[in-house]
Amino acid sequence: MKAEIIAVGTELLLGQIVNTNAQALSIKLAELGIDVYFQSVVGDNAGRLRQAIEVGRGRADLLVFTGGLGPTQDDLTKDVLAEYLKRDLIIHEPSMKKIEDMFAERGVHMVESNRRQAIMLEGSVPLENTTGLAVGNALEQDGTYYMLLPGPPREMKAMIAGAGDDWLRAILGNVKPLFSRILKFAGIGESNLEHRLIDLIEAQKETTIAPYAKEGEVTIRVSVKADDEVEANIKINEAVEQIKARVGEHLYAQRDIPIEVTVLELLRGSGRTLASAESCTGGLFSEMITSVPGSSGEYAGAAVTYTNAMKHKLLGIPMEDLEGEQAAGAVSKNTARMMAERIRELADADFGVSFTGVAGPSQSEGKEVGLVYYAIAERGKETVVYEGKFNGNRSMVRLRAVNAALFRLWQALSAAN
Amino acid sequence: MKAEIIAVGTELLLGQIVNTNAQALSIKLAELGIDVYFQSVVGDNAGRLRQAIEVGRGRADLLVFTGGLGPTQDDLTKDVLAEYLKRDLIIHEPSMKKIEDMFAERGVHMVESNRRQAIMLEGSVPLENTTGLAVGNALEQDGTYYMLLPGPPREMKAMIAGAGDDWLRAILGNVKPLFSRILKFAGIGESNLEHRLIDLIEAQKETTIAPYAKEGEVTIRVSVKADDEVEANIKINEAVEQIKARVGEHLYAQRDIPIEVTVLELLRGSGRTLASAESCTGGLFSEMITSVPGSSGEYAGAAVTYTNAMKHKLLGIPMEDLEGEQAAGAVSKNTARMMAERIRELADADFGVSFTGVAGPSQSEGKEVGLVYYAIAERGKETVVYEGKFNGNRSMVRLRAVNAALFRLWQALSAAN
Repeated sequence: MKAEIIAVGTELLLGQIVNTNAQALSIKLAELGIDVYFQSVVGDNAGRLRQAIEVGRGRADLLVFTGGLGPTQDDLTKDVLAEYLKRDLIIHEPSMKKIEDMFAERGVHMVESNRRQAIMLEGSVPLENTTGLAVGNALEQDGTYYMLLPGPPREMKAMIAGAGDDWLRAILGNVKPLFSRILKFAGIGESNLEHRLIDLIEAQKETTIAPYAKEGEVTIRVSVKADDEVEANIKINEAVEQIKARVGEHLYAQRDIPIEVTVLELLRGSGRTLASAESCTGGLFSEMITSVPGSSGEYAGAAVTYTNAMKHKLLGIPMEDLEGEQAAGAVSKNTARMMAERIRELADADFGVSFTGVAGPSQSEGKEVGLVYYAIAERGKETVVYEGKFNGNRSMVRLRAVNAALFRLWQALSAAN
Repeated sequence: MKAEIIAVGTELLLGQIVNTNAQALSIKLAELGIDVYFQSVVGDNAGRLRQAIEVGRGRADLLVFTGGLGPTQDDLTKDVLAEYLKRDLIIHEPSMKKIEDMFAERGVHMVESNRRQAIMLEGSVPLENTTGLAVGNALEQDGTYYMLLPGPPREMKAMIAGAGDDWLRAILGNVKPLFSRILKFAGIGESNLEHRLIDLIEAQKETTIAPYAKEGEVTIRVSVKADDEVEANIKINEAVEQIKARVGEHLYAQRDIPIEVTVLELLRGSGRTLASAESCTGGLFSEMITSVPGSSGEYAGAAVTYTNAMKHKLLGIPMEDLEGEQAAGAVSKNTARMMAERIRELADADFGVSFTGVAGPSQSEGKEVGLVYYAIAERGKETVVYEGKFNGNRSMVRLRAVNAALFRLWQALSAAN
């Protein structure tokens, strides 16, 4: 089946928002084995929307619309499609009742235009909107399938995962569905991972193994068409074993989860705690860890010692180690070691992690941009200091250093468990 | 002039990347007064690319392509358009030389396919690629304009700001160019700002005033068509004065610059320094400040005191103020005040800023999600504590709290200067 995604909304054509719906829908349709050959964007204009439908019908079996289902006069998708297909618009009573109830509950007067969100094409399947008011629609006419989804990404995503998914699977009939699993890697670059798996990636057998780019993360998706989840899992497990045999030491999760969440889960599971001391990363490690709800149980906090004076005052690092002719310098293995050990002691934590380096764009202490020393101090063990050389601009160097340390923490926690 | 943007690349249809190029191009074309009526995406497939050209020609005067100019056999845009327009492909010698020089310099053997990046349609205008190897193209045939840009966003943006901009302005001829200025606001929500300027926004006179949404930022764009920059500035200044009369106390910059950069510039200009103490923001303030290169001159660092024990150990806040029946609690005006004052003293800085609150998703100390106390301690002045109630999810609450404090810092620095 060939599909075209048609996003409706003048705000897209003006560049006010980026078309993330097209991406999310493309991923979803690919998962179901539906080929997307074109994506289109058209404004809130009846004539041009008709043109887009006409063009789309000529080159696809399924047109997936997103946007233009709201209450305003600019929201035209249902009106234009109904006119194009010569169908009436009717009220979907359950949606109407939901809208009336919502207004009654809030004690707000309902204006007439809100009823527009409950209209649907006669003879179409209503698609329930679990996160908003505008009902979706799906139908077939003259061999072309039409699906109408709301524009707000949250509502669109919920509908395509719920009622939209059911309808698509129904029209696909006996086509085998696609199952997939995300594998997450750390401590290895994307190109290196690809290089080590290239023959598996290029084989393109029944089970496909594909890299999946995301800034600062290294991800593989393993997919297979199967009758059911049991069959799919057997086949996916086989592929995962092949991957593990080559790069298993970098595989930290078999689901789409950031490494900081994995590290926090391992800390929680073993009842241990963490603190950080950061120079060049400026608090990024701390910010990433604390972006996870509930992290205060495992994470004590950080000393962001951006200047040498702060390294001395907050962490007690001797100034003579930081500055002067005899000093190793702020960017050194010695400083990284002391930072990790001091913050671990200060916070009375099981792990202390530290960063000191040159994020760029300019050199520091005559040391090159991208050089970062990071250390892991663990209660009752020798502190380990790592030397990293990271590529990219300032923000990439910082992110890569944080990810490298998270990988080492994950290793230490996995070894201990 | 009516334009259509055609993005070429199978990775877009698979949802592997989001089409940020369409957004950037839409903004650019709108600035030049060119209407974008459609955006399309097509894969790396000659037949379907021809179809997209055919459809685009029928509904636009200008087709802007992005993608498919690279060295591989998948990069088809120039080949397909040349065939469609019955033109030959020729070598653009300066680009060829640049490619050869690059390979010679790196001492890498150049493979034949790299030459493909130097080809251009006969009789077209080459568009210089200042950040990559693939040369752009622009031409007119049978009343339709064609512009070919590279796909990597960095290269595309540089070309559309450089050689592409020149060519577009030339074909627009005596159409007056559009000039615009970005105004940045802080300490005021987007809807409140819009409400206070709504009559100016809706007037849509010669000078247009439009809100410009960007996560966590509040921005207005003032635009006018004029013969030259002098005339444009006079008209834009008039509009800015009207805006200032209403919300001038929130306008921190008349160019697209983040507030943290403005704050760092004001600190630098007055020779003063800053440090932070963070609880609920988890280091986000520090991370944002240190993402600005050279910030170590003005920013000393942070104590990220995520737990009460850390507030006590790093900042010396008495435990009896934090916990127990008599305590104001960690989330309190008193704690915010002490945190700001202690970090200022510890770092021997001119300003100390602090955050303590409930980022969510759950309540803390029985206090509601979104409640954040933040404080500014200034050398020789009374410390000021603010109570903020911020909407949104965990990351939005944190970002809004940091932006609110940056606004208060900006106020304090502006008043002093």
